[in-house]
Order: sequence, then structure tokens, then C-alpha cells
Amino acid sequence: MGVTRAEILSVGTELLLGQIVNSNAAYLAARLAEVGVDLYRQTTVGDNLERATAAFREALERADLVISTGGLGPTEDDLSRDALAAALGVPLLRHPDAETLVREVFRRRGLQLTEVQFRQAQVPEGGRPLRNAAGTAPGILWEGRREGRWDGASKAVVLLPGPPTEMQLLFQNEVAPWLREHMGGWVIRSRLLRICGMGEPMVEAAVLDLIHEGKNPTIAPLIEDGEVRLRLTAKADSAPAAEAMIDEVEAAVRARLDDHIFGVDEVSLPAAVVRLLTENGQTLAIAESCTGGLLASRVTDIPGASACFLWGATVYSNESKTVLAGVSPETLASHGAVSEETARELAEGVRRRAGSTFGIGVTGIAGPSGGTAEKPVGLVHFALAGPAGTRHERFVYSGPRAFIRRRAAWQALVMLWREAKTMGTGGQAGA
Amino acid sequence: MGVTRAEILSVGTELLLGQIVNSNAAYLAARLAEVGVDLYRQTTVGDNLERATAAFREALERADLVISTGGLGPTEDDLSRDALAAALGVPLLRHPDAETLVREVFRRRGLQLTEVQFRQAQVPEGGRPLRNAAGTAPGILWEGRREGRWDGASKAVVLLPGPPTEMQLLFQNEVAPWLREHMGGWVIRSRLLRICGMGEPMVEAAVLDLIHEGKNPTIAPLIEDGEVRLRLTAKADSAPAAEAMIDEVEAAVRARLDDHIFGVDEVSLPAAVVRLLTENGQTLAIAESCTGGLLASRVTDIPGASACFLWGATVYSNESKTVLAGVSPETLASHGAVSEETARELAEGVRRRAGSTFGIGVTGIAGPSGGTAEKPVGLVHFALAGPAGTRHERFVYSGPRAFIRRRAAWQALVMLWREAKTMGTGGQAGA
Repeated sequence: MGVTRAEILSVGTELLLGQIVNSNAAYLAARLAEVGVDLYRQTTVGDNLERATAAFREALERADLVISTGGLGPTEDDLSRDALAAALGVPLLRHPDAETLVREVFRRRGLQLTEVQFRQAQVPEGGRPLRNAAGTAPGILWEGRREGRWDGASKAVVLLPGPPTEMQLLFQNEVAPWLREHMGGWVIRSRLLRICGMGEPMVEAAVLDLIHEGKNPTIAPLIEDGEVRLRLTAKADSAPAAEAMIDEVEAAVRARLDDHIFGVDEVSLPAAVVRLLTENGQTLAIAESCTGGLLASRVTDIPGASACFLWGATVYSNESKTVLAGVSPETLASHGAVSEETARELAEGVRRRAGSTFGIGVTGIAGPSGGTAEKPVGLVHFALAGPAGTRHERFVYSGPRAFIRRRAAWQALVMLWREAKTMGTGGQAGA
Repeated sequence: MGVTRAEILSVGTELLLGQIVNSNAAYLAARLAEVGVDLYRQTTVGDNLERATAAFREALERADLVISTGGLGPTEDDLSRDALAAALGVPLLRHPDAETLVREVFRRRGLQLTEVQFRQAQVPEGGRPLRNAAGTAPGILWEGRREGRWDGASKAVVLLPGPPTEMQLLFQNEVAPWLREHMGGWVIRSRLLRICGMGEPMVEAAVLDLIHEGKNPTIAPLIEDGEVRLRLTAKADSAPAAEAMIDEVEAAVRARLDDHIFGVDEVSLPAAVVRLLTENGQTLAIAESCTGGLLASRVTDIPGASACFLWGATVYSNESKTVLAGVSPETLASHGAVSEETARELAEGVRRRAGSTFGIGVTGIAGPSGGTAEKPVGLVHFALAGPAGTRHERFVYSGPRAFIRRRAAWQALVMLWREAKTMGTGGQAGA
């Protein structure tokens, strides 16, 4: 079959009560757009068998492919399997492969497997389970025809779990490859160029003529959590042709912005930093106060971070700043914990103790309380100690606590990426 | 008319391309739930006259009230007015009051009014405009019957603009008062009980009879990122009555699960831990390896964490385990970095050095590489040192690196919450 028209069906009473925002629908919509599948409708229904069945039935009339999220767990409220079976008019059977998948998860986790869990091993007749790498409920893929329906056309339905992490992994691992095989005709490819150290208006101004002349590929500036991105999208009759078109535009953008492009597509700033330090044979230690472990966590999120990351200290109390990072009590007394001097001593102290190429010190006021007129909430001092000496930066962010912490962790990584990039492997000698 | 059953219709191609998340639907869903209107379905369609018309027509068959967002601007893509008129089978006319509203906005803003802007003054016959305090496009309210349709029932449709600020203001100022007058006077309230240390099937089994007997209030088990929740929802003729009904069910649930309920509604596990430690006058230090700062970050996310959190060490390298947390090199050599012995020494060492009530040690293999047959990826050892001695737990998680790290951070908090809860303020004496 060739998939050209899809619908998304979101199942979950919590969505209809407004308790959560339907980010799954946006995620799936974006993935479908990337591969050129037209999404004509998205529907949300609650955990109700009759209404979910009706929604599946209607969507199957209109679309080639229906992707649902939610309602796959083991409880009686988890009705998507039942609703799909009813909509297709086929029995719901325990599938041996699904049973194996469920058993496997419970064995690996050392959890006791009770009978109720086997609800998750049920599959509408003719379907097959999809492995869920992050949860207990397998996904389901059903493909086929039904006598006297859909004008004889073949349809496909994918059931995915509701928790976003599980849903996304399952989509990437199991659904995306299937989808690529079942697309007919042209392909859409897109590529993200990820930028740091420049605001969106400056980035846009730098490539405005390229944006205006670009119909195919298109260039779209995006901003996500402070990171500016350019999305290059090309449509062609083959993947290589689309990629070649994107290569050309990327070269034109890089001619203007290369110093600020830290990564492409899935390469986040922490990943770019870890890759760069590892390639350069450089190492890192962190002493952070207001970011409270978030900065270290961003770095250690990256597989292989242990090659460059030696250690981190979350120095909340004044005593810990001295004990863990060697900040002198006099500095704390005379300049305060949130000061350029303390940031510098944190960076230099942690670098010295860890014996690392770079040391980062971050100290600030994340709020919501603790600010003064002189040192307001949102004030953050950054220091980066390295072979070339110690650099200092100071920012004042405005927003809630979580926002200030995220922006501060981001800025520390920007400083480090820039410095490591400039030094290149030459930095090793000084380490 | 009495509104009891509503649907939301979201109009906008950007939603179907996944470029924005549909926060409007969640906002309206929550407002409808608050006043006790049942929301049975939410549908999203693109800026396409035929499909938007079909969606309005179908929603009007099922619901008493249809609220749409988007498609009210002046451009040709803004089709919601046209689609509603077509679905109702009435002409679209320029409405004098709507024209006045549009003129007013342009005059107030000092903007030039062109002919195209008067598209925004069109209203399906029988409807009336709703003042938009934050934008140019008036909303629309249409109420009435149509010959030979809806079994003679009266229906209502509200069209709201897409930008969330405009939509919300218009809803609050114009729609909410209308809705209150047209309701049978029902109110829905709901409450989340948040649970740790028990899996979803066990939680469900513990309250299965309550779930089955409960029609009003209802009890629904949910799971989000490993956390089990019970949502209690009551419908009554006043908010206090609904709250009282929920109180009663909560008491019944707590009689069985109280030891596992760490928070209600917005209270996350880290927030519950910080609150408990602060109330008890207890303090905390953390030495974490595989979670890489994430555990400290979860704690320091909480405003006021500095009252109980002293310091954290992200001990990635073996050397740092010794230098920062006092793990003996012999332990590391004989048992390895990922072992019960190392976890215990991390917890005890960090507690001793920080002089805290509790010390947590976490060491494991977050993957994707680094696992062996004996110590697989996902193996994590936890130790909690406190006045009552040191406890150890061992888990094997399966999933990607980020998942293992999140679950491990969660489990460490579960151990701590349980211990601090059991000790109560008595723990202080031993600290």
C-alpha cells in the first residue's frame, strides 16, 4: 500500500479534561509532515469504548493510515486495543509475540508478572506487536483489507502508548522505518542547523535573502528554549536528490554563520561539547550553584560523556564551595557567593582539584526569592578556567526558576563550546 | 437550552503540520471541565473549507455546544466563518455590530482599515459577534435550531480566534458568563493522588472495588514517567459539594494507600521530599554517578531546596569517588565502581563530609555501552545513609540512557521520602 493520507487519534480522558496538553499529536504531526504524508485530521476521544470505536471507524473511512496514542496499558481503562478490534470487526486475541515481549520486559526488570498484564499482549486479529523499548505495553501495527469496506482499499493502523517517551521511541524504532517503505512518490527531507551565541533576529537578518528566495528548499528560522535553529526542507523525487538540494543551501548558510553552528539535527549543544572535548582529548570539571546539578546532568546525558567529564560539584551551601571547590572563605565574605570572584574561584578550584583541561564555575540567584536590588533574581556569574586563563561572563535572566536554571546551563555550555572550538587540539598542550 | 455535551474544533494547518502544540484545546477542555460540561471529542482540521465544514457538521450532530478556535483572521485562509455558515446551511452576512467592533479596534490602534479586514465582520445569519479585547477578529456566538436537523434540538456554536492570548481573554470575558447561564448548574472537580513505591497494577488492585463502584466520583489510575496517579473526579451542583465528595473518596483511598501517597495535584516527589526534610529540620547530601547530576538537579529544581540540600557530587571518575565522597580505592578495586559496597561508601562518605542528616549514593550503568553479563546496562545500586544506618537497594532498568537515569533519580527520591517519612522529626536527634 502507499500511504498518502493519515489521521491521528488521541485516546485519553485526561486530554478531554485539559489535564495535559496533547504534545503527542504535535510530535506525530511533525514526523508525518517530514516524510510528506498529509495529515487531514486529528481527533481526541476519552477512555470510552463506544466513542473510541466510533472514532477509529470514522478515521479508517477517510485515511490510509490511522495512528493512535494512549489506551495501551494493562488496566480496564486502557481500551484502544478493544476499540480498534471492534472498529475493524475482528476478534482481539492474545498474540504469542506480544506475550513474549511482555514477559521479556518483566523478566528484565525483575518484576512480578500478574495476569492483568497480559491484557497488553492482546492484538486485533491480523495485527502484530511492536516492541516498546521503554515501557511494558507493546505497540500494535495492523494492515489489511476488510470485506465490503473502504472500497476494497488496504488500510493501516498503528497503536502507540500514551507516555511521550515510550511513544516517541516506539515511533522512531518501529513505525518510521515501516512508513518509509510504504510511502509512494516524492520525499521530503529536512535538516536542522543548530545555532548558539546569536539571537534569532540576528540569525534571520544574516540569511534573510536566502529565506526569501527559497521556495524549495525552504529555510525556516525556529527558536526552541533559547536555541535558534534553521530548518532546511527540500522536496524531491528521491532522498538523495532532496539531500543534495539541502547540502547546497547548508553550504550557503554556513558561509555566513559557520562559527555559530554547533550541531546538525539531533546533535544538541551538550553532545557537540562532549564530542569536541573527546576529539581534542580535553577534560572537564564543573562547580555549579544555582544550576544545582543541571549543568552536569546536561553533559552526562550524553552517551560517552565519561571520556571527558571527570566530576561535578553542586555547591549549594557556602561551606561546600570551600570544601569541594576551594573557594576562599574571605572571597565569600567580602564579595558574596554570587559574584565574579566566587565564579572564578569555583572554576579555577574545580579545575585544579580535578586536574581537568577546563573548569566551569556557575553561581547565581535562580529565585523565586533571594534577590536584592544589587543582585536581582536571575543574576548569574559564569567563569571558564582553562589553559588560556579564566574568562568571566555575567547575565541577568528574567523568568521563573526553571527557566533561569535552563538558560544558565545553556550559557555555560556556549562558553565552553566556543573556547574548546577556538583552541582545537592545540589546547591539549596547555592542559 | 442546557449545555451538557460539548466538542472542541481546532482549525489550523499549523497544528496538522506539528508546528505548534494545541494548548488552546487543553485550555478550553479544562474550562469546560470546571463548569461540568462533558467534553466528548476534540477534532483538529486544517485551513480547508470542505474539511472544516464537515467537521462542524459532524460535531453539531453529536454535541449541544461546539467551540472552535482559529480561522477567524482577515486572510483567505481564515475559513471558520465560511465553514460554520456552510455547516448550518445559512448565509454569511456582514453584521453591523461586528463591523463596529472591527472599526473600533482599528481606530484605537491607529491602524488603517482596508476592505479585506471586513471579512472579520462577517457572521453566519442568526449569530452575533463577541468582542475581542486583544485582537482584530471578533468571536462569534450562534444559537438556534435548524429545520429537520438535530431532532429539533437547539445548538450553540462559539468561534474563537487562534492566538492563545486573544482566545483566552475572549473566553473569559464573553463565553464563560454565557456558559454559566446556560448550564444546568453542574460543576466538575478533580484531584490527583500521586503515588510512589508501588506499580500501577498493585495500586489498581488495592482500590479495584472503589474504581468499580465509583460512578460519581470516579477513580482513574494513570501513569506518567513511572509515577502512578489516581485521578478522583466528582460532579455536583456546587464546587464545595464536589470537593466534599472527593474528600470522602480520598479518605477511602488513603485508608489503603496512605503510606505511598507522597503528594496531591501539583506536588511532585522532589517537592514532597524538600518539604518533608525542611519540616523535619533534616538535611541532605548526594554522591551520584550514573545519574550524573540529575538527582541533585531534581532536588534543586524546587524553590527553597537550599533549606535542606547542602551539596552534591557528580562522581563520574573513580578518582572523584574517592576525593569527593571518600570511597576507598580498595573497595573500587575489589568490588568495582558499580557495586553495593561502592554505593554504601558513597552515601556514608558524602553524609559524613557534608555533616548532613542523610547521604545518598547512586552508582550504575546508564548505557548504552559499558554493560557486562554480570553487570548489565540498567543495573543501579542505591544507598541511603542516615541516623538509622544505611539501606541498600538494587534495580535493573531497561530502556535508553535517559530513561534509566530518570528512573534511577526517581528511585533514590522514593527511598529518601520513605525514610524521612518514617523517621519524622524524631530523625533530628540522630543527625
